[in-house]
Amino acid sequence: MHKDAPVGVFDSGLGGLTVVREIIRQLPEENIVYFGDTARVPYGSKSQSTVIHYTEQILRFLYTKEVKAIVVACNTVSAYALEEVKAGVPVPIIGVVKPGARVAAHATVNGRVGVIGTEATVNSGLYSSYIMELAPDVKVFSRACPLFVPLAEEGLWKDPVTTEIAARYLADLKAADIDTLILGCTHYPLLRSTIREVMGNSVNLVNPAYETAVELRRTLEHFDLMRETGLEQKQPSYSFYVSDDPERFRRFASGVLKAEIPAAEKIAIEEY
Amino acid sequence: MHKDAPVGVFDSGLGGLTVVREIIRQLPEENIVYFGDTARVPYGSKSQSTVIHYTEQILRFLYTKEVKAIVVACNTVSAYALEEVKAGVPVPIIGVVKPGARVAAHATVNGRVGVIGTEATVNSGLYSSYIMELAPDVKVFSRACPLFVPLAEEGLWKDPVTTEIAARYLADLKAADIDTLILGCTHYPLLRSTIREVMGNSVNLVNPAYETAVELRRTLEHFDLMRETGLEQKQPSYSFYVSDDPERFRRFASGVLKAEIPAAEKIAIEEY
Repeated sequence: MHKDAPVGVFDSGLGGLTVVREIIRQLPEENIVYFGDTARVPYGSKSQSTVIHYTEQILRFLYTKEVKAIVVACNTVSAYALEEVKAGVPVPIIGVVKPGARVAAHATVNGRVGVIGTEATVNSGLYSSYIMELAPDVKVFSRACPLFVPLAEEGLWKDPVTTEIAARYLADLKAADIDTLILGCTHYPLLRSTIREVMGNSVNLVNPAYETAVELRRTLEHFDLMRETGLEQKQPSYSFYVSDDPERFRRFASGVLKAEIPAAEKIAIEEY
Repeated sequence: MHKDAPVGVFDSGLGGLTVVREIIRQLPEENIVYFGDTARVPYGSKSQSTVIHYTEQILRFLYTKEVKAIVVACNTVSAYALEEVKAGVPVPIIGVVKPGARVAAHATVNGRVGVIGTEATVNSGLYSSYIMELAPDVKVFSRACPLFVPLAEEGLWKDPVTTEIAARYLADLKAADIDTLILGCTHYPLLRSTIREVMGNSVNLVNPAYETAVELRRTLEHFDLMRETGLEQKQPSYSFYVSDDPERFRRFASGVLKAEIPAAEKIAIEEY
């Protein structure tokens, strides 16, 4: 495997760009190929078999880009499909759930952790399983928040309506006296200040993106796959692929990555 | 074409069942084949080319069921794809936009009509075009309401949050002094009482499903395709197909149709 090969990152849509942002920050030399399934988004309310089927198509697409490692930047795919497909993946593959679970298991002091995510992510129970593997005494409380993604996409990041919905979704977690809350969907960091307002300052909010990038570094080092730029200072290259309108994607991506990004290319993902 | 052949009805997901309900009420003898694209829902935020591509796959699937006519029970498809695909469709095909526009054009007294729908439906401008063809003096005011579908699916049909969001979305339409409002998305009739509360009793709310079923009857009569049951009282048959988990669909469908419906069958729509 060539060290100059790109890291493949994929998501059901746009949210995974928050993970790309973190990878660029921590691993600025790496080349990245991103795929966002913008035509078939969202995955969070789909069945497990459909999520697995879509994931397999995306993996086959990423193989054509000769990626040296893959990051599943989507909680739903990490929770619903990663365990099922990973045996057949010929390169190291990392999801966001395990790193997020690890941080939470270490961060909690009172042993009470909350998880919020899509219906699929919460139903999978995977955050709970990982946390309880690492810290059997920790109690995990979960809650699906189906309106958070549409509210975030509507731009209502700080809004009385979002606060009211958050207060309802998070009431049971507050009552459960959690001291750590995993933001188990890549859109949720956009609502961070609202969630902070509802949960109060004493609760630790965990965004799995940071720890996922740490784990990617560890994995590349382990397999001796880190890109070496040396004195030449070769600029990294970033390529973006989507299954729906590329222009719309580019606008959102420029905002999240705070940079002009190259034009995304639309591909027919269902043919893979 | 055989009179006993079924009518094909399709939607991006579940909402189209409100149209099926109306067809069953008005045309109780007809056999119906329904397809809901529950794996790829929603269509309302997708690009036109993707909506056309998905529509072509669904049409090819419906042809395998030898349908005698097709009802597009989805405003987004009716607005974005129907004009583009209909030349190639070998049977009569009816959308919900034209019937809805016709009712509104006739119902308005002050010549000011509002349209609410998905981003795609509103961007298409098709409701406006049809209304202005029928009644050139009528002024049309449109507004996309992206949160209405997730709010309806979350069950918040009557809720202070939905009322607040509706008040924001509908403020400009109220200010424009419309006397008629088209519910241009099959989910919106579920929010009817909230929309009624915000708009007041003097505004006429138009649900295109009713007029679509009227148009289907007219079309079947015109082509001499009405099913004849005569004295034998042959029971109509209903078949449901989806692209994601059938069980979830069945529960929702039983609720909307107020009857036990036969098990839905999952099909691989992307292979058509």
